[in-house]
Amino acid sequence: MEASLPEQRNVSTMQTLPGFRDFLPEQCAVRNHIFACWREVARRYGFVEWEGPVLEPTDLYKKKSGAEIVEQLFHFKDKGDREVALRPELTPTLARVVAAHEREFKKPLKWFSIGQFFRYEKQQRGRLREHFQLNCDIIGEADLAADIELVALCIDVLRAFGLSEKDVVVRISDREFWTDFFREQNMPADRWDELLQVIDKFGREPRERTVEKLGKLADPVFATLKGGGGNSDKLNRLIAGLRERGLADFIEIDVGIVRGLAYYTGIVFEVFDRAGKFRAIAGGGRYDNLIGLLSDGAVSLPALGFAMGDVVLGELINETPHAREAMEKAIASNRKIDIYIVIAKEERRADALAQIQQLRERGYRVDYPLTPTKVARQFQAAEELGARVALLYGDEWPQVKIKNMATAEQELAPQDRLLAHLQAQVSLSS
Amino acid sequence: MEASLPEQRNVSTMQTLPGFRDFLPEQCAVRNHIFACWREVARRYGFVEWEGPVLEPTDLYKKKSGAEIVEQLFHFKDKGDREVALRPELTPTLARVVAAHEREFKKPLKWFSIGQFFRYEKQQRGRLREHFQLNCDIIGEADLAADIELVALCIDVLRAFGLSEKDVVVRISDREFWTDFFREQNMPADRWDELLQVIDKFGREPRERTVEKLGKLADPVFATLKGGGGNSDKLNRLIAGLRERGLADFIEIDVGIVRGLAYYTGIVFEVFDRAGKFRAIAGGGRYDNLIGLLSDGAVSLPALGFAMGDVVLGELINETPHAREAMEKAIASNRKIDIYIVIAKEERRADALAQIQQLRERGYRVDYPLTPTKVARQFQAAEELGARVALLYGDEWPQVKIKNMATAEQELAPQDRLLAHLQAQVSLSS
Repeated sequence: MEASLPEQRNVSTMQTLPGFRDFLPEQCAVRNHIFACWREVARRYGFVEWEGPVLEPTDLYKKKSGAEIVEQLFHFKDKGDREVALRPELTPTLARVVAAHEREFKKPLKWFSIGQFFRYEKQQRGRLREHFQLNCDIIGEADLAADIELVALCIDVLRAFGLSEKDVVVRISDREFWTDFFREQNMPADRWDELLQVIDKFGREPRERTVEKLGKLADPVFATLKGGGGNSDKLNRLIAGLRERGLADFIEIDVGIVRGLAYYTGIVFEVFDRAGKFRAIAGGGRYDNLIGLLSDGAVSLPALGFAMGDVVLGELINETPHAREAMEKAIASNRKIDIYIVIAKEERRADALAQIQQLRERGYRVDYPLTPTKVARQFQAAEELGARVALLYGDEWPQVKIKNMATAEQELAPQDRLLAHLQAQVSLSS
Repeated sequence: MEASLPEQRNVSTMQTLPGFRDFLPEQCAVRNHIFACWREVARRYGFVEWEGPVLEPTDLYKKKSGAEIVEQLFHFKDKGDREVALRPELTPTLARVVAAHEREFKKPLKWFSIGQFFRYEKQQRGRLREHFQLNCDIIGEADLAADIELVALCIDVLRAFGLSEKDVVVRISDREFWTDFFREQNMPADRWDELLQVIDKFGREPRERTVEKLGKLADPVFATLKGGGGNSDKLNRLIAGLRERGLADFIEIDVGIVRGLAYYTGIVFEVFDRAGKFRAIAGGGRYDNLIGLLSDGAVSLPALGFAMGDVVLGELINETPHAREAMEKAIASNRKIDIYIVIAKEERRADALAQIQQLRERGYRVDYPLTPTKVARQFQAAEELGARVALLYGDEWPQVKIKNMATAEQELAPQDRLLAHLQAQVSLSS
């Protein structure tokens, strides 16, 4: 556990850097399953995929992301003396891209992206130095209907993994609730950001420290957090919109949610496991001013979005039996090949190879032994690789023996009619 | 064009860093199409996906990758004072992972990976500071059958993009041909690497410089390169193996191919466009000693692999009309949504939203106007998004009008039987 050790300066080339992961085939299958569900649901919602660079000018984040992101930036000077950073989040890149290109697209944009993000901090459970994120954003729509659509998408992404309202909860708040509150309390606007950070850390910092930071606001803030608050018309309409879709059971109003990032302006939300074992699974909200700020006012567009990481989500799926089972089943089925070619006589290898080429061209996943191998071991390989059919090239030539691996039934087909024969039997893997 | 300008030290946050790309939806669709073909064909060959970290200890590359890679390393010191590099290539990571985990897997391993790689050099056509690569490797098989399988896979990946033997050529050589040659010429083994680098640069460097570097070897090397050479038994068997699969027309023996990377030991190959307009599209070969070298002899396994980048491939597809057409068709079809919901009366919005939720849950890609919109504009959106069907929620309620967008035929279906009705009409997008 690196968390309790000093940084290791002697880096071994025989292991990953701390906080970075190798994805062996099993882990890569999990990652790809997560990516596939993310992409699938985003596309059902009519979202279109895009992607930005993993390396960006450090200033892109220093300007607007807020203290927590900047402290943990994985940044350095490149050989051209530029201050650059491995991106900690996607939103500033999105704002840059939209400011430059928005005229090419009809509004609202509904864009999603799947990519890797970085931070430099001590490793902890659910927090490495890299992770993958789904980002979904709607640009150019100020109406609350967009907030509802975005939260619904976030919930449906989780449901695609078999997670229900018993497993996860979306805690929703509205930054305007707090800015209205600060205004009532006559707090100057230039202190609001800092106060929101204190509220964001509520419960994660010692109470005395929170009291100290809030000063005379401590009592009314505590009272508000305790009371739940947030009975605003906007939040009620948001819940009503989700109820129309049958998703209201996933929602709880919680004005304690304000999000660490500095640029949010309206509705904000975070997703947690109901048992409270994990960090936030996803989070997002409205950032109506960010595009204008980053483009120095050249382009002003309302916007909102959320991000969901792969690490905490993966842990939650792993510890939720029905979700884990569904994932394992999907992965096992996706891993299978279609056809294994058993070369029983080496004299038939050239014929088999010509056939393998034909089958692969038709889209079948086909494997075979690269070198002479005992027939029993070949059938074992066919079994392990999940082949639905084994084709045996041996004494029966110019006929080929077709073995259905599930039923063990065998039949003979002439080599030149094999393809038609198989087409009827073996549908393509997706 | 940055190539002719000094490095810009004042980095704007309103553009990408030099050599990095934004993938707007159109470019992202091209990238995803390339990824999908790569993955599809690798899986047909029974290859299994894995992935490594994008950041690695710099020493991983300094040890074995060779001078060209090291010169162009995108490296820096991290906050923990480690020498780290954005990976320039995957093979050293693969060797590390295999050395650590090979006991968990049956040999041979057939692994592929799709990921991003980095170099720090001046930008040129087809050469940015980042690109994506397909890497395919076979570990644990010394037989030439593995080399044939790997080259066949590389060719079939290109064929999946509609590229034929008229568009691309695989130039194949064997480093053993040259090491045998050096041995005959009594060159000491510690000079072989350096001589191979000179041969690799042949034709790209001034001839005088090559002559100078080769010394007394210049004449016999030039004679060999001119004569084509390489009429070895191994290369002939390799071609015969590809002929069995009908792929021999893609192949040319060219002993001038030795590959820039230091760790190759046997068969090496590079893929070029026939017209000779572009840089290499792909390259690879055998590196039987690398795993042993990186693991200090703990694990010794023969290995071979190739990498194919997205940038040159993308340019070639773009300039090859039949390949470009095929790609555009695939992208256009993949972009489409299934169903557009036209809300003709705002009183019906809640009913429509409940229906949208149902449809998306069944896997349909569904879009609708977030806010009140003129019906004509909604149908226009349905058209632009490629919807196969539009559902109209209006005066007909509790019936819904179903419009087939291709034929403009319309029919009415009762809301409660809509799903069954659609299931017969609209098959899911893949």
